[in-house]
Amino acid sequence: MAKKNAFYAQSGGVTAVINASACGLIETARKHKDIIGKVYAGRNGIIGALTEDLIDTGKESDADIAALRYTPSGAFGSCRYKLKSLEANKREYERLIAIFKAHNIGYFFYNGGGDSADTCFKISQLSESLSYPLQAIHVPKTIDNDLPITDCCPGFGSVAKYVAVSTLEASFDVKSMAKTSTKIFVLEVMGRHAGWIAAAGGLLVDHDIPVVILFPEVVFDQKKFLAKVDANVMKFGYCTVVVSEGCHYPDGKFLAEQGTTDAFGHAQLGGAAPVVANIIKEALGYKFHWAVSDYLQRSARHIASKTDVKQAYQLGRAAVELALKGSNAVMPTIQRLSDVPYKYRIGVADLKDVANVEKFMPKDFISRDGFGITEKCRRYLLPLIQGEDYPKYVDGLPQYVTLKNIAVPKKLAAFKV
Amino acid sequence: MAKKNAFYAQSGGVTAVINASACGLIETARKHKDIIGKVYAGRNGIIGALTEDLIDTGKESDADIAALRYTPSGAFGSCRYKLKSLEANKREYERLIAIFKAHNIGYFFYNGGGDSADTCFKISQLSESLSYPLQAIHVPKTIDNDLPITDCCPGFGSVAKYVAVSTLEASFDVKSMAKTSTKIFVLEVMGRHAGWIAAAGGLLVDHDIPVVILFPEVVFDQKKFLAKVDANVMKFGYCTVVVSEGCHYPDGKFLAEQGTTDAFGHAQLGGAAPVVANIIKEALGYKFHWAVSDYLQRSARHIASKTDVKQAYQLGRAAVELALKGSNAVMPTIQRLSDVPYKYRIGVADLKDVANVEKFMPKDFISRDGFGITEKCRRYLLPLIQGEDYPKYVDGLPQYVTLKNIAVPKKLAAFKV
Repeated sequence: MAKKNAFYAQSGGVTAVINASACGLIETARKHKDIIGKVYAGRNGIIGALTEDLIDTGKESDADIAALRYTPSGAFGSCRYKLKSLEANKREYERLIAIFKAHNIGYFFYNGGGDSADTCFKISQLSESLSYPLQAIHVPKTIDNDLPITDCCPGFGSVAKYVAVSTLEASFDVKSMAKTSTKIFVLEVMGRHAGWIAAAGGLLVDHDIPVVILFPEVVFDQKKFLAKVDANVMKFGYCTVVVSEGCHYPDGKFLAEQGTTDAFGHAQLGGAAPVVANIIKEALGYKFHWAVSDYLQRSARHIASKTDVKQAYQLGRAAVELALKGSNAVMPTIQRLSDVPYKYRIGVADLKDVANVEKFMPKDFISRDGFGITEKCRRYLLPLIQGEDYPKYVDGLPQYVTLKNIAVPKKLAAFKV
Repeated sequence: MAKKNAFYAQSGGVTAVINASACGLIETARKHKDIIGKVYAGRNGIIGALTEDLIDTGKESDADIAALRYTPSGAFGSCRYKLKSLEANKREYERLIAIFKAHNIGYFFYNGGGDSADTCFKISQLSESLSYPLQAIHVPKTIDNDLPITDCCPGFGSVAKYVAVSTLEASFDVKSMAKTSTKIFVLEVMGRHAGWIAAAGGLLVDHDIPVVILFPEVVFDQKKFLAKVDANVMKFGYCTVVVSEGCHYPDGKFLAEQGTTDAFGHAQLGGAAPVVANIIKEALGYKFHWAVSDYLQRSARHIASKTDVKQAYQLGRAAVELALKGSNAVMPTIQRLSDVPYKYRIGVADLKDVANVEKFMPKDFISRDGFGITEKCRRYLLPLIQGEDYPKYVDGLPQYVTLKNIAVPKKLAAFKV
């Protein structure tokens, strides 16, 4: 194989473990310098490719690359920037190919969710139609866990663990206070249209904690919800509610609706928790507390799932291994072999089957009343939150790495994004 | 000394380490069974004493009592219930003495904040005036860190660590996204009228992270605040804001005001973060995310400060040691001897000097512009977040103990609270 450079970019919302994928990818590439010359990272994702703002990861020490495994967020910067269709904006795709050509890039690694898988697929198609040889490989990443084919997505297990741990702790708190004070605790979690993250709250039934979950997949039925909450307060003295940001009314309006949208045209959510808390207060009169964990949940590397970190690393490594095998337009996946004991292997999916497909919670993962999870869901989730993988601490705080991120000299004219 | 039983109760908002104090107290009492017979705990705090709902902690195994050290929340239940003045409600105080007499209780241990110190002091006075011999000892506990005399309060160090770690992680996240998306992250924290918890965000200057703190001690100056945030975005590309729930406008109105009050007559706060985020959005146009960590911050035993856990345990132990020495109307304290290396010893304060005194942030702990902390504050805070003290995990979740909490048979007629 002729020696080519690689391009790697992080895309969309970052996670506690996306850097672990970067770590797996770069460390593996460094072992094959005869085939993969340099690994260039896009500063702020694909924007870095369009503007020729490339980072030479070769300038980072082995120790700093290894530290990525323990560092949350996107070490090279990410972005919310969706390339339009090939027809609508061929200019951008052609620019990408020009950049790749100028920097002798033969491998395109894109680390992101559904939208990024679509971009990655388009780039692989374009390289064919322009006869520029490029292997485009997608590395899955999304806390929303909504990519198809792969059993789970790196980033999700750690958020699930954060949500389960936090809900457990806050429930212990409310239980202590319930006699004379707070009886209701509402935690709002992310996940957009998929209830995977909210489902993690359901793992607390093993701990005899009354948790009512509001899934995006289940239309909000206020009367039924209030009856469920009240029944819990009667039985346990308190009730915890985990509400997904994507929870919505029968007319489709989000409980959290703020009226703004992000670059991908998705509604920007946040604020369902106070809405739900007030609904309970008004109908049942119970004193409440609520929390919106927002970015805290997805950046909480301090309580990341060891399973998740390991898989993120393995998928980064697998992406390079697929490249070395000559694969194109693919994504390494997690293939679950068994729940107990948990066994999985690294598989591979064609990007055409991944792009723009959202995986929702299966119907049989949600309990009949719509407010909890089934045993099947529990068996699915439990392996994903297993194990702790603590970062090192210095002076009371986790020692997260900030890379040097040294730019590669530009070769082309400027380009307006 | 004649053998007497002890009464222990948890009061007010619970913390990640109040059970560590209970652990220190009960384990130490168990070593002196010749003097302290039984340790009875009030179910749901002082309410349990008034209603003769006592828990026999002697029915708990040594292992379960030891596990309290790793379990957040109040294992016996807490309450927000402030006894009125002796003049206004002598009936309740007399009931307490009747309960203590009926159960041969000679030691009253009250584990709480400023209001509880006041109750504890009143009870010690009453026991004198009623000639019922009782040693009343207060064990400090409050995440707000606002008790006088003691250098710090158990519960605070762990919240400070949670806030510093969470703000660090979320700031890494925002930094990754800032190029095309979120530039502002706002985290709301507790602390009521004292900015101690918010101050923990200031420890991130060591990590070159732009954090603007809104203290309750500094009147909110919108214009100056916006200029500071904008300057950070210009310099760093993003800005993190830590806002205390007690932050208020010049007219005294809280940013978070919801119009409700708790049993102690304090305004119930929550919701400053979205207010601050929207102020920034409207004036500067930056995309924001916000989080309200609420109970998560004070129950986060999974990331508790080792220093805090140790001190909570030591103060519980010290309370028993003070009792054995015959002390009354006192509170064991943390006396700091040096910052670097951190050294302290256990001291003792008279309750008359503690009750109803709130300790605010000293002026020289807040930076001149009002949005950060000084080096002096940093030296104060840093030792308190040192060390990790992880709980054991089983099946991906912390193994927190739930006690049996077996009731002591009642001896008196019912009493209406």
